[in-house]
Amino acid sequence: MDKILRINVGSDGGPAAKTETHGDYDGLAGRALTSSIIGKEVPASCHPLSGENKLVIAPGMLSGTTGAMSGRISVGCKSPLTGGIKESNSGGQGAQVLARLGYAAIVLEGKPKAETLYKVFINKDGVKITEDNSLGMLGNYDLVEKMKAEYGDKVACISIGPAGEMKLSAASIAFTDMEMRPTRHAGRGGVGAVMGTKGVKVIVLDDAGMGMRQPKDPDKFKAANKKFVQGLRKHPVTGEGLPAYGTNVLTNVVNEAGGYPTKNFMWGRFDTCSKISGETVAALENERGGDGSATHGCHRGCVIRCSGTFYNKDGQFLTKQPEYETVWAHGGNCGIDDIDAIAMLDRLDDDYGVDTIEMGATIGVAMEAGVAEFGDAEAAINLVKEVGQGTPLGRILGNGADVTGKVFGVERIPTVKGQAMPAYDPRGVQGIGVTYATSTMGADHTAGYAVATNLLGVGGTVDPLSAEGQVELSRNLQIATAAIDSTGMCLFIAFAIMDQEETFQALIDMINAFYGLSLTADDVVELGKKVLRVERDFNARAGFTKEDDRLPDYFKNEELPPHNITFKVTDADMDQVFNF
Amino acid sequence: MDKILRINVGSDGGPAAKTETHGDYDGLAGRALTSSIIGKEVPASCHPLSGENKLVIAPGMLSGTTGAMSGRISVGCKSPLTGGIKESNSGGQGAQVLARLGYAAIVLEGKPKAETLYKVFINKDGVKITEDNSLGMLGNYDLVEKMKAEYGDKVACISIGPAGEMKLSAASIAFTDMEMRPTRHAGRGGVGAVMGTKGVKVIVLDDAGMGMRQPKDPDKFKAANKKFVQGLRKHPVTGEGLPAYGTNVLTNVVNEAGGYPTKNFMWGRFDTCSKISGETVAALENERGGDGSATHGCHRGCVIRCSGTFYNKDGQFLTKQPEYETVWAHGGNCGIDDIDAIAMLDRLDDDYGVDTIEMGATIGVAMEAGVAEFGDAEAAINLVKEVGQGTPLGRILGNGADVTGKVFGVERIPTVKGQAMPAYDPRGVQGIGVTYATSTMGADHTAGYAVATNLLGVGGTVDPLSAEGQVELSRNLQIATAAIDSTGMCLFIAFAIMDQEETFQALIDMINAFYGLSLTADDVVELGKKVLRVERDFNARAGFTKEDDRLPDYFKNEELPPHNITFKVTDADMDQVFNF
Repeated sequence: MDKILRINVGSDGGPAAKTETHGDYDGLAGRALTSSIIGKEVPASCHPLSGENKLVIAPGMLSGTTGAMSGRISVGCKSPLTGGIKESNSGGQGAQVLARLGYAAIVLEGKPKAETLYKVFINKDGVKITEDNSLGMLGNYDLVEKMKAEYGDKVACISIGPAGEMKLSAASIAFTDMEMRPTRHAGRGGVGAVMGTKGVKVIVLDDAGMGMRQPKDPDKFKAANKKFVQGLRKHPVTGEGLPAYGTNVLTNVVNEAGGYPTKNFMWGRFDTCSKISGETVAALENERGGDGSATHGCHRGCVIRCSGTFYNKDGQFLTKQPEYETVWAHGGNCGIDDIDAIAMLDRLDDDYGVDTIEMGATIGVAMEAGVAEFGDAEAAINLVKEVGQGTPLGRILGNGADVTGKVFGVERIPTVKGQAMPAYDPRGVQGIGVTYATSTMGADHTAGYAVATNLLGVGGTVDPLSAEGQVELSRNLQIATAAIDSTGMCLFIAFAIMDQEETFQALIDMINAFYGLSLTADDVVELGKKVLRVERDFNARAGFTKEDDRLPDYFKNEELPPHNITFKVTDADMDQVFNF
Repeated sequence: MDKILRINVGSDGGPAAKTETHGDYDGLAGRALTSSIIGKEVPASCHPLSGENKLVIAPGMLSGTTGAMSGRISVGCKSPLTGGIKESNSGGQGAQVLARLGYAAIVLEGKPKAETLYKVFINKDGVKITEDNSLGMLGNYDLVEKMKAEYGDKVACISIGPAGEMKLSAASIAFTDMEMRPTRHAGRGGVGAVMGTKGVKVIVLDDAGMGMRQPKDPDKFKAANKKFVQGLRKHPVTGEGLPAYGTNVLTNVVNEAGGYPTKNFMWGRFDTCSKISGETVAALENERGGDGSATHGCHRGCVIRCSGTFYNKDGQFLTKQPEYETVWAHGGNCGIDDIDAIAMLDRLDDDYGVDTIEMGATIGVAMEAGVAEFGDAEAAINLVKEVGQGTPLGRILGNGADVTGKVFGVERIPTVKGQAMPAYDPRGVQGIGVTYATSTMGADHTAGYAVATNLLGVGGTVDPLSAEGQVELSRNLQIATAAIDSTGMCLFIAFAIMDQEETFQALIDMINAFYGLSLTADDVVELGKKVLRVERDFNARAGFTKEDDRLPDYFKNEELPPHNITFKVTDADMDQVFNF
């Protein structure tokens, strides 16, 4: 994993690939690498859809190794949704396969001279780029079937659906899972639109003939990995909650806490949420076709296994088990408690290639505007179909909550830096509000998951309804997350490493054993800080100020039932988040 | 003109009016007053469509007097289009009548409790606010006819069309002209959407029984006014060019100079512009029904008389003589050289209540996206009709060039701070580029009309194709404009006062004679600076930085034919504009 593949799609005569050494970016992987390349090479003032923007796809430090949980991949660019820097992170097979092929990153650069679609095939022998306009406007599912017919079912695909081709700001990039289905997405920030501007419809990765990446010290690596896995297995969240019900285990928890954003962030509880909770969905999956173990991993090497399969009423595969954020976005946030409809929305989002969080938030805003009624599942499905069809209404929605709110004259738009808030109301879970407001990414729960400490008692306790301690909590989590996002580790390891010192140490030992380093916990923290500084610097050059590190005013003015509480962290306190 | 009328539309039991003294804002009028009220009373972080925003309508210092050219009115708010402070300026009868009624400003505040439309009637006896939902979605022309039937043809109307009711970011506020037609608009920045959120469809002003405002020193005022008029009459622009052909006299001039933005700012010249030039239109108007004098004033007291009447092929009134910027926006910028189609677009814009500049620029962007072909006049008319109908496509377009570009994935969007550039390419007329970039208003030619010096030789000479001298030129013009916008004087007086010291002195003498003051030229400059400082301060608090004082990157990278020139003023120089 010591080379960077650069594909200049704007070259005379079509895309030209060249392979470089890591060079300036030596030692960096995942988010640290994507943000460093964007920070250094992309003019902060450029239009996100211009040839000056770049799309960087980078596996993590430990991706492609036998290390558990190491299969996350980072996608970076200047975001068409936020106008700032973006790292969007995905599971699926992409990270492991790309890393085994020896690539630290793929960088798509330039702008095609003509409106042509390309597919990129990468295997042990190198890179082949082929014009293939027959792929135009294919959904991710059909596209992957086509690739399967062409390249077999052992490859991994990185692709965009129609939304990416249409350059919609909510467009995602799909990564195939272990069953070679396009169910895993770098969803946030419109990264799919940037891939669309590059004219690359799909990247097919074939690691046949490539082995696991080998550690410098195999014995130490193996021992550390074992300890690491033990730690994950004994933590209640990663060893019990997530394996049993997937991420949707959170529905009842967040609802109970009164922080479940309902009907476009009007209420903090959704009366009928039990109809769409993780417990309900797990039972349904087993009833309809599951094997009794509701969940499995999204990539090789996963031991948490929070993923699952959703079967339709006829017992046939419809989509992956919808994630908590998806169930919320298309469910409670739209007043919808029909899990089959929510699963269909998840399937359509994945197929068209749009972010489920942004789409659900957007439909919530559209419902507030009167475009459809809250609770009307059929209308919601039709709205998402409009996105796939690229109608004017579909293009509005496919550009996210901010554009939709503007187009329909809605005042209550739950976004920060143009990106929709996920499944936690910042009034009911004040720590996540600090992360939403201040993250370099726009509203993003994964950037500093204060929910863990506010609601789950992980990493200590901080009262979710009080302003106290939230800034420090969010700061520490944002730093830790930036580091974890660079390792290629699934963010869910954070639950265990926050509570178990020895599991955190095991992670550091793995990195050290693999690379022959002697990093300390302080070095990991320093890496996280460095990544955030690079991202903040880019955003400042793109015109962001502290005024962009704010929630919309209505969160400060409008009380959220049932606690009848507003967001209480002051602007002055918020400005201390990056005081490190 | 010593009182401020505040109407709180959010009061229990419906809108409540109260009249206050000038108070804190003593001595301020026009833009100085609107910007001061917005700067002081509106939270910079508020949503422009929220109840926290205010709409301020204020005539100028000399409006309602016998002073020539004193009939301009300022409309201020936080702009839904730019997110910054906004002062949008209009002609028509509103300024004179409102000033004679004694009001320094009308301030609409709060948010209605229900979706109800109101009409506000103001005469010498006071203010009457009536619920009238029968006015819903009426175009400005039908609305004004209805008001005429109700209140007679001596009143003045301030109104919004369907666009304002739909809260579209390109929505304007219409002011009736001397013929009581809704042809004059505070067009820019979406002020109509803010009036829409207040639920006020129309304000009817009746000054029956009110006399002219009386100067403190009538003799001095009369003498100064006489000198002022003499100056205007002898200047070639205000005495000859504008009276003969209206503002559209500029088409040939700007095209010849290679600064006429053609087909969404692709070229600097439009081959067939002579078909839509002021000379052609003036001849056509006379041929179809004009009285031989092509132009007349838009308000009582105008001596420049740059307005006119456009008759259709049957010799019937269709719209006012379209302004240069309108002819460009719907003409050259869309590759359209059919003056009847352009006039129809002007009429539709006025009727629906949208800014002609924003709409033309938006259709240019939509044409680049392939929504219609450049040059297709019928398609352009249909697109504007979609706006009036409020279809999804219409709502996209009605939210301006930035939203339209985003929705359709267009990279080349000619906006600054979200507001579309008017009829001068900043590469061909570099001075106006500095104004576009740095103005507190977003791209706005009237904020500092460097075209005068770059192309017309007014106020000296500065080479339009060189970076040199543009910053100083724009700075001085922006300061002077902010002051003029506060007097209520038509900005066209600037041509004369820039070239004739005695005419500038006459203006100051008028103010001094009217108010019993002893202001100097320095005081006027200081007023302009003060207004700009208030506006810059608001924008900073709304999150604007120097990165927002920039043209889109493509103006720096893409050469404009025929001069094959890019925008050359450096960012560092641009940052010196407000260095005073």
